[in-house]
Amino acid sequence: MKEILKQIPERSPKPRKIGLTMMMDKGLSIREAENFLETCYEHTDIVKLGFGTSILTPNIAEKIKLYKDNGMLVYPGGTLFEAFAIRNQLADYKKYLNKTGLNMLEISDGSMFMDHKLKCSYIQEFAKDFKVISEVGSKDSSVEISSENWIKWMRNELEAGSWKVIAEAREGGNVGVFDGDGGIKSELIKEITQHISDSDILWEAPNKNQQIWFIEQFGVNVNLGNISPNSVIPLECLRLGLRGDTFHTFLKK
Amino acid sequence: MKEILKQIPERSPKPRKIGLTMMMDKGLSIREAENFLETCYEHTDIVKLGFGTSILTPNIAEKIKLYKDNGMLVYPGGTLFEAFAIRNQLADYKKYLNKTGLNMLEISDGSMFMDHKLKCSYIQEFAKDFKVISEVGSKDSSVEISSENWIKWMRNELEAGSWKVIAEAREGGNVGVFDGDGGIKSELIKEITQHISDSDILWEAPNKNQQIWFIEQFGVNVNLGNISPNSVIPLECLRLGLRGDTFHTFLKK
Amino acid sequence: MKEILKQIPERSPKPRKIGLTMMMDKGLSIREAENFLETCYEHTDIVKLGFGTSILTPNIAEKIKLYKDNGMLVYPGGTLFEAFAIRNQLADYKKYLNKTGLNMLEISDGSMFMDHKLKCSYIQEFAKDFKVISEVGSKDSSVEISSENWIKWMRNELEAGSWKVIAEAREGGNVGVFDGDGGIKSELIKEITQHISDSDILWEAPNKNQQIWFIEQFGVNVNLGNISPNSVIPLECLRLGLRGDTFHTFLKK
Repeated sequence: MKEILKQIPERSPKPRKIGLTMMMDKGLSIREAENFLETCYEHTDIVKLGFGTSILTPNIAEKIKLYKDNGMLVYPGGTLFEAFAIRNQLADYKKYLNKTGLNMLEISDGSMFMDHKLKCSYIQEFAKDFKVISEVGSKDSSVEISSENWIKWMRNELEAGSWKVIAEAREGGNVGVFDGDGGIKSELIKEITQHISDSDILWEAPNKNQQIWFIEQFGVNVNLGNISPNSVIPLECLRLGLRGDTFHTFLKK
Repeated sequence: MKEILKQIPERSPKPRKIGLTMMMDKGLSIREAENFLETCYEHTDIVKLGFGTSILTPNIAEKIKLYKDNGMLVYPGGTLFEAFAIRNQLADYKKYLNKTGLNMLEISDGSMFMDHKLKCSYIQEFAKDFKVISEVGSKDSSVEISSENWIKWMRNELEAGSWKVIAEAREGGNVGVFDGDGGIKSELIKEITQHISDSDILWEAPNKNQQIWFIEQFGVNVNLGNISPNSVIPLECLRLGLRGDTFHTFLKK
Repeated sequence: MKEILKQIPERSPKPRKIGLTMMMDKGLSIREAENFLETCYEHTDIVKLGFGTSILTPNIAEKIKLYKDNGMLVYPGGTLFEAFAIRNQLADYKKYLNKTGLNMLEISDGSMFMDHKLKCSYIQEFAKDFKVISEVGSKDSSVEISSENWIKWMRNELEAGSWKVIAEAREGGNVGVFDGDGGIKSELIKEITQHISDSDILWEAPNKNQQIWFIEQFGVNVNLGNISPNSVIPLECLRLGLRGDTFHTFLKK
């Protein structure tokens, strides 16, 4: 890039510690995953196998291997963790992860009630054998979480062993740090990031207006997730100012 | 599934008689159809070649053969039937179906006026040589059909030889049993299903909120159609309670 | 088509001079581009490599060659031209175009201010070595351009050497000749086409309601662009009256 165009913001190099992009795979075939890697390898760090899709996709172990062989972190959506948790089958979940070659998982409580201390103990326990990402926020749009709780829970989960914490937004981008129309709760986000480093947070931001806001607020190397496969390159264009919406963001005045 | 997770609702096994999923193909290439079958074979029963797309897609006979060889029922959208009907070319339509290897068709009157008795006679005639699925409802959102007519027409068409009747919704999910915003006319649907078995109806339900409603109303094995290729696995997750929206639907209290 | 169905409107044959369809590629892999060509070759004339995506897509030269070998006109989105222009790197842009095998470009000023005379001089200069398509309209929805200016600027740019002029609409179809909700500024469009031949204009019309309006207004062979890869066949169905929305448009009364 720098050889081609001047004044392009500096992207972190792979393997990235910040500026992560997480793609949401809802059931790609092997060939579609290969297509994705061909064009998006350089711009993607993490693949989430959305909600329970991984147990319905044939040859999932082969696809996970393909992603891992290409340096991607791979984990199944938190809903799958919760589906095992609510059935008291977490030991079976560990077996499932091991069998399919997954060394990372998401621990969330977006669809069920889980005592926060219990959630943290799960994080602690799974973190012994797996990379853990945990999620704060409810999938139920009627649930309001105070900024104090957002901050306290994120901090506790990071201390319990989460590699990053996710701010729940769903595939629709309409809960958690967003309102029902996908609008951004900017005051809440600013308050959270006064106490939790934004580099420790992975923001689910499926919609373009949300991606733009985070890039303008936190810079080119903000961590963004729930990106559909064919939105990864458009997102990278937004990060680099190669799309109308952020065309002027990183140009020197 | 049952080996992995407990309390998952019982899906009908393939070849299915109920719990059908119909995918809408709007012009996939051969390789894209192969990708689809790799991941969605188990979760799909019927492929509709949407509206008139089949006569614009090269190698359509090859694609139809591919789907049929994989046990899919395949039929072109009703708009194609109507395009031949309004031109008085139904004999040519039979030739087209035979030439491309199609042994199933949709008979509809969503875009043109057709006397109901004439429509039933078409169903009767085509049913001699083809599997017929017929559709009730107008593509014109200003046309209101009384529940009495929905019920009478569906019954007549089933008696005339339709394998199933479709409740028109379009790709947008915004006419027929839905209102212009995609909302569900639940009273109408409940009234219809007091007289017509819901297993005889294929509900076009392209939007997630519609799919959720039908699953919660009629159970895991409701027949759903107009599903885009990459929404088939997400829909199967909804059916099985592996997505936030139906997470609690089938759990024993 | 004519062998199959009567009363289908006459489409211009390839290579087309009118009735052009421009597909927007936002980062397809080689295999996805092949899939696209398999089904859409006959229905597509131009490929736009959307905004700055071309410099982020690996093997871009190979993909450009694939499209060109299949008779497609190929050009990168105007935002890329502007990204080079605002950095005073237009000489580098020429090198980039030559290096990747591009013999066509878009000259626009949708994201930056550019004096209209300067823009025309760029068109004149680039037109010596490249096929130039230029775009009128701002990506900023708050910018209102009078119909006089739409007409004057389009005329000047055509005289300066543009092959066609584009009416800016963005991928969202919500600026320029459309309002913020995607509605059509029909009076403006009619006024423009009283002075500029509609065959000299490529209308960006990503949304179905917009495509229908243009087809009903200007006929089957209107030039339409910003069409997503999997909407090209559905658009062709709209053109030919093989979809409910235009079912009656071209039928003789």
